[in-house]
Amino acid sequence: MAEEEPGYGAHNLPYGVDERGHVVVAYGSFAIDLAALGGLSVPDEVLTSGSLNAFMALGPEAWSATRAEIVARLDELPMSACRAIGGLSLVLPFEVADYVDFYSSEAHARAMGQLLRPDADPLPPAWKHLPIAYHGRSSTVVVSGSEIYRPSGIVASDTGPTFAPSARLDVEVELGFVVGVGSARGRSIASDQAREHVFGVVIVNDWSARDIQGFEYQPLGPFLGKSFATSISPWVVPLAALERYAVAGPSQDPPPAPYLVTKEPRNLAINFELVLNNTVISKTDSGDLYWSMAQQLAHLSANGASTRTGDLFASGTISGNEAGRAGSMIELTNAGRDPVKLDDGSTRAWLEDGDEVVIRAWCGLKDAEHLDLGEVRGRVVASMEKDGP
Amino acid sequence: MAEEEPGYGAHNLPYGVDERGHVVVAYGSFAIDLAALGGLSVPDEVLTSGSLNAFMALGPEAWSATRAEIVARLDELPMSACRAIGGLSLVLPFEVADYVDFYSSEAHARAMGQLLRPDADPLPPAWKHLPIAYHGRSSTVVVSGSEIYRPSGIVASDTGPTFAPSARLDVEVELGFVVGVGSARGRSIASDQAREHVFGVVIVNDWSARDIQGFEYQPLGPFLGKSFATSISPWVVPLAALERYAVAGPSQDPPPAPYLVTKEPRNLAINFELVLNNTVISKTDSGDLYWSMAQQLAHLSANGASTRTGDLFASGTISGNEAGRAGSMIELTNAGRDPVKLDDGSTRAWLEDGDEVVIRAWCGLKDAEHLDLGEVRGRVVASMEKDGP
Repeated sequence: MAEEEPGYGAHNLPYGVDERGHVVVAYGSFAIDLAALGGLSVPDEVLTSGSLNAFMALGPEAWSATRAEIVARLDELPMSACRAIGGLSLVLPFEVADYVDFYSSEAHARAMGQLLRPDADPLPPAWKHLPIAYHGRSSTVVVSGSEIYRPSGIVASDTGPTFAPSARLDVEVELGFVVGVGSARGRSIASDQAREHVFGVVIVNDWSARDIQGFEYQPLGPFLGKSFATSISPWVVPLAALERYAVAGPSQDPPPAPYLVTKEPRNLAINFELVLNNTVISKTDSGDLYWSMAQQLAHLSANGASTRTGDLFASGTISGNEAGRAGSMIELTNAGRDPVKLDDGSTRAWLEDGDEVVIRAWCGLKDAEHLDLGEVRGRVVASMEKDGP
Repeated sequence: MAEEEPGYGAHNLPYGVDERGHVVVAYGSFAIDLAALGGLSVPDEVLTSGSLNAFMALGPEAWSATRAEIVARLDELPMSACRAIGGLSLVLPFEVADYVDFYSSEAHARAMGQLLRPDADPLPPAWKHLPIAYHGRSSTVVVSGSEIYRPSGIVASDTGPTFAPSARLDVEVELGFVVGVGSARGRSIASDQAREHVFGVVIVNDWSARDIQGFEYQPLGPFLGKSFATSISPWVVPLAALERYAVAGPSQDPPPAPYLVTKEPRNLAINFELVLNNTVISKTDSGDLYWSMAQQLAHLSANGASTRTGDLFASGTISGNEAGRAGSMIELTNAGRDPVKLDDGSTRAWLEDGDEVVIRAWCGLKDAEHLDLGEVRGRVVASMEKDGP
């Protein structure tokens, strides 16, 4: 039954959680309920606990063993353990512990610098020395399909700073990874130890209100401009499925500090497309990110900060150097000056109420064997409280 | 028995959690184990669940009822329900959901601006229009008494950016509050509704590595310079105990946006002293904070961000305008140029390994009836991995 969905074959097997709180694995157009499948080494209570956290906390040996056990059963799957994916209502796949958003794409960082600080060097001074990041809000990480309420906040206006619904609502195409096995306070995670900790990856849409962000962000960084919503895809693709898509990544000059040195190919070549109201407005990929997942994890823990099961790391907006390969509307529209054209004849400088944004991601060529990461989807709805509380 | 500790009388009754996971209330020099006391309306499982979260989630009516029930029992406390506070090992009183640190003291914001950006206006452009804040790391919020590992990170040096243990380790004296009842995504909390959500307050020490922070913080704010540790006091003083210490706070000009307007006295007059190796190096108080708890909560949720039981809000460093009333060493020492003198004859520009920092806080006059918030304590220990991973 896998043939209908070639991106979800035995080489993929991503994990999700259904509306009953059961851990499911996508295979073809079906979701395998692992507790119903039975016969796995993992205890049933881990597979029906409402999130992937308990399973992720078991660590890489359990992840490998479970994956091997599932693969061995694919030819004799009982229909009683399978549900059509179309009939599922997938929930947030893991409880988010801390959420951190990086700034790892050089093309994006340069573009933002040019747009926001035209008189300064586009790259912040520390940018090539360490993976710049900030902590985001965990409580507003939501699963694909969740409605996105247009945020209000204080924005600059001709009459001075004014509280209003954002008029510059934007998206950010990002790759996220989730920590399965945490680390103690006072310890750090070496850059070659990431696979002992990282369970898998998701697609991230880091919704952003550029006008709110622009007014508030100095000197402590973005806050209300980002904290209203971050959407993630419902399927977590295990790292084991992605190893064949590892690529070197761009060379790093100046050479990174020893704690950030990685010996192996450090990036994943994942294709992304950004779709606004059924029009593809950008295509990009994660192979050229400057800072890798392993470097992000090593950096975050280099000061002895602890990590926990469920920690979500996002790459920051993934942009390419070529036109049409930027992962945000602020870049694609030149800060709203050059709106994008949609297939229905309309244009968009920024998102309007009712707009639907989908980010899809996959590895390989879509018309050949490929590995699908699925999608993250969200529709913008009017601010519930346009005039403020 | 309350007489020995006049700051912990029937007017205070702060909540904590002991090493068995039981909810306890301080009264005099004793801790009342509420489950052992019995006869309360709150179910026993809420009182033995390892944190205050389940109790805080019950909401203001349950908080009031429980407080009244405890007060009614103070004259007939069975010794079987009491333990000497000196024999307790208090744990982190609540599971931290999201942690947000504000920047609410004008004297502190001006001092930091002058030290870090001497050529610019010391107050960031948005500072008087909204309470500036950033998300901190929840996983490293620790209870008083926890060791503080000196963080490493990339710092500027004569030979260029270098990975090293911080040489500018600092503290920040802050007031924190914890959310008991959260709010849904898409909704906001009105500035006059804070008491429906806020359970109580704690003392916060937001440990800071100024050299790491200085190198990394543009444009997304502090990250490794703050994320290694934040200490909180073990006793959560309920808001109900603090109402008599409400004060107006400084006038706000320009007038805040409607969603930030508060009608009642908005601040709490809490005295703080900062003690380094048994020498009091600063005295300050929270009555003059520019932005209040209610304003912080209204602001954080104004964009529709959800809040949850266990959300920790910190005020940012509390500094006064007068010399010796700054809540951080970077201010007290003029960025290390004028070290503070300790009673043992030594001096400190920044914290050394082995140094112990205590922040104490109370309302009222210490030699009269007062309300004690207790203390938050931490000792600096050497970086576990001086040379990096």
